Amino acid sequence: MPRVLRKPSRHLPFGDRRETPYYGRDILSVSQFRRADLATIFSVAHEMREMVERVGSFDLLKGKILANLFYEPSTRTMASFTAAMERLGGSVIPISEVHYSSVAKGESLPDTVRTLECYADVIVLRHPQIGAAAEAARYARKPIINAGDGVGEHPTQALLDLFTIVEEMGGVDGLTVTLIGDLRYGRTVHSLARLLAMHDVSMRFVSPPLLRLPDALRDELRAAGAKFQEHEKLDEVLGLSDVLYVTRVQKERFEDPAAYEAVKDSYVIDSELMRGARNDCIVMHPLPRVGEIAMEFDADPRAAYFRQMEYGMFVRMALLALVLGKA
Amino acid sequence: MPRVLRKPSRHLPFGDRRETPYYGRDILSVSQFRRADLATIFSVAHEMREMVERVGSFDLLKGKILANLFYEPSTRTMASFTAAMERLGGSVIPISEVHYSSVAKGESLPDTVRTLECYADVIVLRHPQIGAAAEAARYARKPIINAGDGVGEHPTQALLDLFTIVEEMGGVDGLTVTLIGDLRYGRTVHSLARLLAMHDVSMRFVSPPLLRLPDALRDELRAAGAKFQEHEKLDEVLGLSDVLYVTRVQKERFEDPAAYEAVKDSYVIDSELMRGARNDCIVMHPLPRVGEIAMEFDADPRAAYFRQMEYGMFVRMALLALVLGKA
Amino acid sequence: MPRVLRKPSRHLPFGDRRETPYYGRDILSVSQFRRADLATIFSVAHEMREMVERVGSFDLLKGKILANLFYEPSTRTMASFTAAMERLGGSVIPISEVHYSSVAKGESLPDTVRTLECYADVIVLRHPQIGAAAEAARYARKPIINAGDGVGEHPTQALLDLFTIVEEMGGVDGLTVTLIGDLRYGRTVHSLARLLAMHDVSMRFVSPPLLRLPDALRDELRAAGAKFQEHEKLDEVLGLSDVLYVTRVQKERFEDPAAYEAVKDSYVIDSELMRGARNDCIVMHPLPRVGEIAMEFDADPRAAYFRQMEYGMFVRMALLALVLGKA
Repeated sequence: MPRVLRKPSRHLPFGDRRETPYYGRDILSVSQFRRADLATIFSVAHEMREMVERVGSFDLLKGKILANLFYEPSTRTMASFTAAMERLGGSVIPISEVHYSSVAKGESLPDTVRTLECYADVIVLRHPQIGAAAEAARYARKPIINAGDGVGEHPTQALLDLFTIVEEMGGVDGLTVTLIGDLRYGRTVHSLARLLAMHDVSMRFVSPPLLRLPDALRDELRAAGAKFQEHEKLDEVLGLSDVLYVTRVQKERFEDPAAYEAVKDSYVIDSELMRGARNDCIVMHPLPRVGEIAMEFDADPRAAYFRQMEYGMFVRMALLALVLGKA
Repeated sequence: MPRVLRKPSRHLPFGDRRETPYYGRDILSVSQFRRADLATIFSVAHEMREMVERVGSFDLLKGKILANLFYEPSTRTMASFTAAMERLGGSVIPISEVHYSSVAKGESLPDTVRTLECYADVIVLRHPQIGAAAEAARYARKPIINAGDGVGEHPTQALLDLFTIVEEMGGVDGLTVTLIGDLRYGRTVHSLARLLAMHDVSMRFVSPPLLRLPDALRDELRAAGAKFQEHEKLDEVLGLSDVLYVTRVQKERFEDPAAYEAVKDSYVIDSELMRGARNDCIVMHPLPRVGEIAMEFDADPRAAYFRQMEYGMFVRMALLALVLGKA
Repeated sequence: MPRVLRKPSRHLPFGDRRETPYYGRDILSVSQFRRADLATIFSVAHEMREMVERVGSFDLLKGKILANLFYEPSTRTMASFTAAMERLGGSVIPISEVHYSSVAKGESLPDTVRTLECYADVIVLRHPQIGAAAEAARYARKPIINAGDGVGEHPTQALLDLFTIVEEMGGVDGLTVTLIGDLRYGRTVHSLARLLAMHDVSMRFVSPPLLRLPDALRDELRAAGAKFQEHEKLDEVLGLSDVLYVTRVQKERFEDPAAYEAVKDSYVIDSELMRGARNDCIVMHPLPRVGEIAMEFDADPRAAYFRQMEYGMFVRMALLALVLGKA
């Protein structure tokens, strides 16, 4: 029987002492990473950045195949993983109509994944249900990379957010990172906060009262010894922030439309507002944006949100290379 | 005028005496294969398996382009052909939204195919109408591979089924192959039975009375001198079968729901039932399954249905290499 | 910050005096081309044709990535650009479900384009709104190729039409080119007429009165000094035409069904009619056709409409190589 890839026993910590410790591993959750893992991933991602800037693409994963299994559409994430694999010389099987095909005939996720791993070397999975990636990984021999499982996790987003800070600011320790907007439901904010809590960072959370951090996450951050404060007004922290991480405040979160109207403009970033910010800070956003950052600000060198997309590709290149044993 | 590929006159037997007898040919139906053709295809497919297991991919079809023209979705088949082409170093044009585009404007299948062959070197066609692949092949200069034409044929499925038996059992002659479930409407069963009838095989057909083999196929198998028996109960043949080929019994086939309820569990494979089967037999299924084989059985080494998917990729690699003159 | 590709200041004429004058440029409209530009593009396209006919594919754009961003489906155009990129050794990010993903969440075209250029080296854009490609180009650092913007332009179609004439007839000057059918709404006809007007060509426009050239285009052609005449009957010009460019007369254009019935068969090309045409003329059509050219005529060597599709691939290969600085 063809057994192209060994998959080590699963619930070990992410990085162990073997020579290629990430080979064959799944990427399911930010909770699987220690600080040393982040350092390894970012070091490889930085090399990827340098090689892309110098030569565009190279053949590290030539002959390898990625199955992009998307149960719900996500142009940005699918395009980013596709580019990451192609810039490493590998190939992609795009599967984005999964609802209309065998799955519609009732096939289970484990069966779909075990079929695709017959063809591919690694599977990127986007699924609307929390826990889907972990379930897939339980059955798969080949590595599964979680590209978002509903209200669950989207670990590569969190990694690219942190990598953006590392690359733009030269490191994370000592920084003041301000997270703005919908902190209650924002999956990206929660994952990033967990990664920041492993570092010597001062976090500032700015949101309307209705959209404050969930209690469980606040407790978790406290237990981890993280330094953070919560605010309602952006101007209280604008001038002391090294990083402004902006997210969208969605109207649908408010029962009372008046309550939404009262706060909606409080967290909009524009050139006028940014006169009060540091000259060497950066503004990040997971995108897509819908009015949270004025387009006029895009030309400002502090606008890092499109560069963030590029860092995302470098991080995904690094992860693909690592789980395929080539980095 | 660019004429990249000669296409030999069409209705010759599949394998002829030329140096590369499969070059430029269409793959439309299992009826075009003689025993010697199967031997050639399986010999190439076996080489593909060995090369994939050793190095993953190689550049045999580098620079060649496959157009995957799917008029109805089939994740599994599309992914398998994509992987087959990519593992040979070739590229793929994925076309799966064909209903919404020029075809929706009324373009005929011959025109679509003659357009795509301007771009690609080989076309894989999935279409809901019987005869579509043959019609496409009448007009095309480049090879057409039938990936399913409605209730018609799906020849690469039949080839991969037979190749699975060859690889897993070391050959076909002398085996007892038991086909189970919906034998009346099951396209894969009919095609496999035709290929088995070319060999010294004892076939056992197990189904409820309502879903027995069609009369025409029974007559055809008799005329071919095939050895076969029909049964209603699986336990009559379980212990003497080398291969159990399981298919789904669909509720919709029964007018009387009570009749469905009465038989539906008769052909479910689970670990308990398989205690009565041979230790060296294999269980196959074209997938997707919906309850015909219990998931608990997946870990049994006799469960060959996921390996079957891999054999499918090897067979498709072989066919692509053959019709493109590279094997 | 990664800045892989310089993008020269925008509103220069298409070809300038630099060493690789097309490097980094957008392809938005036929109006950006001078005769010398057409000569350059066609010379590269002719080389592409020769190389494809000799070796099929080659690695000129190895490592480069094309994002195929289609806001509306167009199988033909998407497949043609995909094949063009793959035959040059490059890779493709296919994005055709854009309506269902981040765009559905309200993302603007400039943001989508600025995200994709983080992953890709060149973007091909198909969009239902006029001006979309120009808007995208205003924001993008990487080259944008307009693959159709609603009732606006589809410049690569016009280039492939003219290139077909050049390759099939050995040149353009001195020819009589007859354009037939819906000359009022036919976007391809308008663009081709503009390119022909740069040459010493006699144009004949044949249409029902209701579907004559728009006044503005007639004025534009006159101002450019183009030689042309308008006709209602095809037989007035059939015998003197070197090129017959056929387009579809759509029933929906007529308020009065009787008016449609009266003219609909006047412009149908079949073998009988073509007895009155020159032996060395060619028949072109942008495809898809729906009855404007009888299938019986396809075998006639004068039927150039499928070859036209191949010329399209060569032109797109040339454009990709030029804007990526590799030709």
